[in-house]
Amino acid sequence: MRRWVGRVIVLPKPSVNDPQGLAVLDGLSSLGFSGIERVRVGRSVEVYLSSEDEQEAARELDEMCRRLLANTLIESYTFEVCEEPDE
Amino acid sequence: MRRWVGRVIVLPKPSVNDPQGLAVLDGLSSLGFSGIERVRVGRSVEVYLSSEDEQEAARELDEMCRRLLANTLIESYTFEVCEEPDE
Repeated sequence: MRRWVGRVIVLPKPSVNDPQGLAVLDGLSSLGFSGIERVRVGRSVEVYLSSEDEQEAARELDEMCRRLLANTLIESYTFEVCEEPDE
Repeated sequence: MRRWVGRVIVLPKPSVNDPQGLAVLDGLSSLGFSGIERVRVGRSVEVYLSSEDEQEAARELDEMCRRLLANTLIESYTFEVCEEPDE
């Protein structure tokens, strides 16, 4: 079994209200940052897992996203899989 | 001015307790996923901004991370900057 890390990004879909994003935009403006058009805030998740090969790790990660990590009604997700060197 | 999107990932530093990560690990195990060693949960932030060039956009994003988006005592951040095509 080889070791992998899946880096998942979950973000609210464009049509969904994102109050956290609005709050961060306000905060950045208050700090003097200008030229910011839009901010979206979501989650990032790193999953360290063992799996036979990259394809199997990606299949498992996709299932984790659909079943637990993302609410696919209102959120979209992307992930990448990288091999972890043995310690 | 050109338009950019900064994709920021904020994660708890390895030495910091991550109760959300433990909860997600428990949840995944309950759903029957095996072979998971560790999970870390943080935030992802997309910032759409205007800036003269990529270097300036990256400089602004780094300052946003240090001043608002990440708590650098307990969190680490990474980001990438991509140019947004004009609509």
